[in-house]
Amino acid sequence: MSTVNISAPAEQRDVSRDPGSVGIVVPRQHTFREPLELACGRTLSEYTLVYETYGTLNAAKSNAVLICHALSGHHHAAGRHSEEDKRPGWWDNYIGPGKPIDTDRFFVVSLNNLGGCHGSTGPASINPETCRPWGPDFPMLRVRDWVNSQARLADLLGIEQWAAVIGGSLGGMQAMRWSLEYPDRLRHCVVIASAMKLSAQNIAFNETARQAITSDPDFCHGRYLDEDKLPRRGLAVARMIGHITYLSDDGLGKKFGRELRSGTFERGVEEEVEFQVQSYLRYQGDSFSGSFDPNTYILMTRALDYFDLAREYGDDPVAAFSHARCRFMLISFTSDWRFAPERSREIADALMHANVPVSYAEIESSMGHDAFLLPNSRYQRVFDAYMQRIAAECDEGVGQ
Amino acid sequence: MSTVNISAPAEQRDVSRDPGSVGIVVPRQHTFREPLELACGRTLSEYTLVYETYGTLNAAKSNAVLICHALSGHHHAAGRHSEEDKRPGWWDNYIGPGKPIDTDRFFVVSLNNLGGCHGSTGPASINPETCRPWGPDFPMLRVRDWVNSQARLADLLGIEQWAAVIGGSLGGMQAMRWSLEYPDRLRHCVVIASAMKLSAQNIAFNETARQAITSDPDFCHGRYLDEDKLPRRGLAVARMIGHITYLSDDGLGKKFGRELRSGTFERGVEEEVEFQVQSYLRYQGDSFSGSFDPNTYILMTRALDYFDLAREYGDDPVAAFSHARCRFMLISFTSDWRFAPERSREIADALMHANVPVSYAEIESSMGHDAFLLPNSRYQRVFDAYMQRIAAECDEGVGQ
Repeated sequence: MSTVNISAPAEQRDVSRDPGSVGIVVPRQHTFREPLELACGRTLSEYTLVYETYGTLNAAKSNAVLICHALSGHHHAAGRHSEEDKRPGWWDNYIGPGKPIDTDRFFVVSLNNLGGCHGSTGPASINPETCRPWGPDFPMLRVRDWVNSQARLADLLGIEQWAAVIGGSLGGMQAMRWSLEYPDRLRHCVVIASAMKLSAQNIAFNETARQAITSDPDFCHGRYLDEDKLPRRGLAVARMIGHITYLSDDGLGKKFGRELRSGTFERGVEEEVEFQVQSYLRYQGDSFSGSFDPNTYILMTRALDYFDLAREYGDDPVAAFSHARCRFMLISFTSDWRFAPERSREIADALMHANVPVSYAEIESSMGHDAFLLPNSRYQRVFDAYMQRIAAECDEGVGQ
Repeated sequence: MSTVNISAPAEQRDVSRDPGSVGIVVPRQHTFREPLELACGRTLSEYTLVYETYGTLNAAKSNAVLICHALSGHHHAAGRHSEEDKRPGWWDNYIGPGKPIDTDRFFVVSLNNLGGCHGSTGPASINPETCRPWGPDFPMLRVRDWVNSQARLADLLGIEQWAAVIGGSLGGMQAMRWSLEYPDRLRHCVVIASAMKLSAQNIAFNETARQAITSDPDFCHGRYLDEDKLPRRGLAVARMIGHITYLSDDGLGKKFGRELRSGTFERGVEEEVEFQVQSYLRYQGDSFSGSFDPNTYILMTRALDYFDLAREYGDDPVAAFSHARCRFMLISFTSDWRFAPERSREIADALMHANVPVSYAEIESSMGHDAFLLPNSRYQRVFDAYMQRIAAECDEGVGQ
């Protein structure tokens, strides 16, 4: 492994007009040349991970936190890539100076997972054996493969033990898997809007999304890059399905109601009536389909479907969590129907029965699953209080 | 209008091995040659409706009930088309001798709506002006157009006043529209798992389904029949979306859980893991896409989206229902999240405020929106009790 300069000044500088921002950030890449054996039995001889870091690693290297991203996420969690960058990273509401994941106190590491399409090795990368894009030949990945590759990244950065591993949704599954696979390498596990396994309904939505992609003729059995094509229409539909289900009925109602974008309901007028929610969804689908690799979407949804925390522990979550040695913080949102509070309560129950310390907060929100990304004062306070406790432990030298 | 023999012996005969069945039924068609003015301002110069009838119209013609179908329904609601017919009509659980819609007491009329694809004039029919399939040139329809065409069918059958107009989901919307457009032509309105208008989330799901169809290259801007093509893939995805949302999370979980159809979760095995719910959905999507016209699916979902009972009454449901003169029976199902009990309670509240007699039953079920089609003892009892009251009124000569 090569070494890496952890706090290079070029990586991060203040954007004076936004004191809550980590400022301009520069992603980094590292190519790992030690082969990675995967859960499926295949081996990646080498692979690249792209990541960003915010804040400064303390001398004891005890203040590092790992951010695990969800389905369509990536390494760019906070700050901006340039002064002109219109949108900050995907979790900028919660990562930055003075924010719950306080970059004045924590050294935050955020990566694009293996199989991703934002700079880490994935289906759109070149397969060194064929010198062509991997496409459908890229190995199927499980959440544990991500955790193993994240552990390599920790090694690279000299981080023996994370102060916390944090993730929402699919990211929360990674955080939980960390607690079982590397129990000594994290002190806290923060699991937001997640579940120990998906329900049949969740799998059904993911399957429908995959069908939308794979049935697009431009999918070309996954070899669209070889054919210079892109199954944009299928990916747009897949994204629309995801988008609806990540919002709540109430949330969509509040945002759009039955407002019309154009057209009229007048009798005698034949014109395509278009509800605002329709044009919004089309826009979301179209913009996503121009920026995300379809094979990655399939890979990520499959990993989500396959995840089953307790499967190898005799389907007993208590037996599973009895291997954990960290403390847990769980957060769920009342209107989240894809990762409902009930799923978080199941995690909390299993942890309590396994005598693992756990805090659990159920946050009132009408924003559905997306709530974990959005501003919400109670969520902010609860999350902040827990993270401050972790930061205080770091200052006191816990884990050194 | 031509006349029609209402109780032709060929239409219906006993299937001795199934005493609860209406037996073998033969659909009928009638072509209406009086132009029908549509809500969009266009006029259909002529149109055909296909329908079935079960039971016998009494001498007073007071025992007729109209069945209005939902999104993917049709005229074949009960019985079988031949001895070899594997599946009975879509509402055979509730229509037949001794069943809630008792064909020993009622004369039941069930039609395929205008715009449909099972024998009534629709986008797949030949446009007499061009001698080619209507395709996307078929007029957009509203629920009121169906109600108007159903009134013509009632005229044809000599039915002045329905004992009841009955429908689930989109069918319930037609029943409610009947109560406002033809208040003197029905004595009871039975509205099951319906709503006065769709929520933004419902519209969003329908929009995604339409996008799946229209973005399939074989859709050919709706002219697939001219091109000898069929957007089967898109229609299959649309059906999958519908299918998931008509079931509940619990219902899907009970039916499929996370059971595997093939594959294994063993470490070290790279094989496509396939959950039973996946293969079930694919089968549902594929079989539907071979039997339903995509333009009809678009037309029906649009009518569903546009329906807004109280729009022309100043958005005041109480003002709307003050025009009704019939009694109402409302039924909803606890796990139905697309047409939630809350939507039925809104209808009940508006009816009560408008001083319209209403009964309302909320039925415990884990089967989601599909519950209205499925066996359920409490639903059966409540529905049966209400229908028996109507039948007794018919016997007593009410409405003659």
